[in-house]
Amino acid sequence: MKKLKRSSRLVEMTHYLLSRPHQLIPLTTFAERYNSAKSSISEDLVIIKEVVEQEGIGELNTVAGAAGGVKYMPKMSEQAAIAFVESICEELRQPDRILPGGYLYMSDILGQPSILNEIGRMFATVFANCEADCIMTVETKGIPLAHATASFLNLPVIIVRSDNKVTEGSAVSINYVSGSNKRIQTMSLSRRALKEESKVLIIDDFMRAGGTIQGMKDLLKEFNASVSGVGVFVESGEVDDLLIEDYVSLAKLSGVDSKTKQVIVGPGSYFQQ
Amino acid sequence: MKKLKRSSRLVEMTHYLLSRPHQLIPLTTFAERYNSAKSSISEDLVIIKEVVEQEGIGELNTVAGAAGGVKYMPKMSEQAAIAFVESICEELRQPDRILPGGYLYMSDILGQPSILNEIGRMFATVFANCEADCIMTVETKGIPLAHATASFLNLPVIIVRSDNKVTEGSAVSINYVSGSNKRIQTMSLSRRALKEESKVLIIDDFMRAGGTIQGMKDLLKEFNASVSGVGVFVESGEVDDLLIEDYVSLAKLSGVDSKTKQVIVGPGSYFQQ
Repeated sequence: MKKLKRSSRLVEMTHYLLSRPHQLIPLTTFAERYNSAKSSISEDLVIIKEVVEQEGIGELNTVAGAAGGVKYMPKMSEQAAIAFVESICEELRQPDRILPGGYLYMSDILGQPSILNEIGRMFATVFANCEADCIMTVETKGIPLAHATASFLNLPVIIVRSDNKVTEGSAVSINYVSGSNKRIQTMSLSRRALKEESKVLIIDDFMRAGGTIQGMKDLLKEFNASVSGVGVFVESGEVDDLLIEDYVSLAKLSGVDSKTKQVIVGPGSYFQQ
Repeated sequence: MKKLKRSSRLVEMTHYLLSRPHQLIPLTTFAERYNSAKSSISEDLVIIKEVVEQEGIGELNTVAGAAGGVKYMPKMSEQAAIAFVESICEELRQPDRILPGGYLYMSDILGQPSILNEIGRMFATVFANCEADCIMTVETKGIPLAHATASFLNLPVIIVRSDNKVTEGSAVSINYVSGSNKRIQTMSLSRRALKEESKVLIIDDFMRAGGTIQGMKDLLKEFNASVSGVGVFVESGEVDDLLIEDYVSLAKLSGVDSKTKQVIVGPGSYFQQ
């Protein structure tokens, strides 16, 4: 690349770093890319670091030494996180979201790129150091959340299917009891999807008793894989016998009253750490 | 926000613009945000525009007048697009992707955030001016592609389900014939998901004869909605009687030979426009 002025280089470096989260980038990469001295690159990085951290959008960490470099870790400030979750809760309290059976319609929320971005950033904040090799979710509504998180943590996503598809090759299936309807259901994961002994971050949209997540954990055992974290968008606060203990929820739904059209929802366990 | 030095302001503006694609941002927003004169902001935008366009990552368009502002449109250069698709085709040619029945395993590819980003950017390039109100896909493998595209076009995603879920409320269902297995299947979309008379961009992972996409088109008619574009990741080149004419494919799969372990795949219709 031809030599850029400092102002142009700052713009280009910002784009380069922001689009490569959780990747260690050696200073020589920038020095060669911009045909500049490492000392100039270091000065640029100080400016970018300052802005990123002042804005509360992440951290820029420098690792010294021959194998060193710089790594952008997207984060969300506690203040921004609580403001965002409060706005989501307000949205969820709209009476017309209440469906027959006391369910809450939230597919529209999980279809908005800007909202998914914030959710992904929150999970990327709390699981920044969980050292997962990949993110796992179960179809269907968890998929956008898993991918939003993946884009900030730079991890691949694997999708557990509720049926066995010809396009997935040989698969491992297990039965589990879904908390929502107490029915025995099947979930399956392609043999090719997950390497043995992987560390896996589980992300899902909703957790009642945790049956589906327990199912995913059982499935992971079949691959000798381990769980490095569990994150759910909304957990139900109406359950006494939770199957899962260690998880992070962004919001907690404590009650849906179909008669009075009242939805009781507030911030989740994310804020109790 | 406190007054920033130009260098810091450039970093912050770059982040601000990149994370708000396809949104018209008035110059006053920046002037107020950085407590700076509009003339300085304009100078900054010239620098950012130059870098963005030289790098081939998009356009920065300025709309003059009282209702004016600046809009970042993420794009991919033709050169980068063909290089990317060639690398994907190379990946798809790996013999161990061939599954019984001549299917090709590609879930791992559709799980990589960096690949999804490039695919999303390509669709965002070709559909930049399609004026869609939302993106529609059908579960399961199309979902990550739809969301990747949505994040660059700043559009909400609606997901057509293969079953009728209690968490979706009342839904419209139709029957369709899937080209892959010639079976009659059902797809349904929540009444709440789509406003009447919306313009919809359809995104999916794989198209054989186009039965599934025709199904989505039929479903849209039930909502008095119209199609503003159709994009598929891979199309099959082995079909004579295509149900769909107007679509964009990124790659074209012309043959899978289970015996010789050969996969014939190349760039799709994206490059023939």
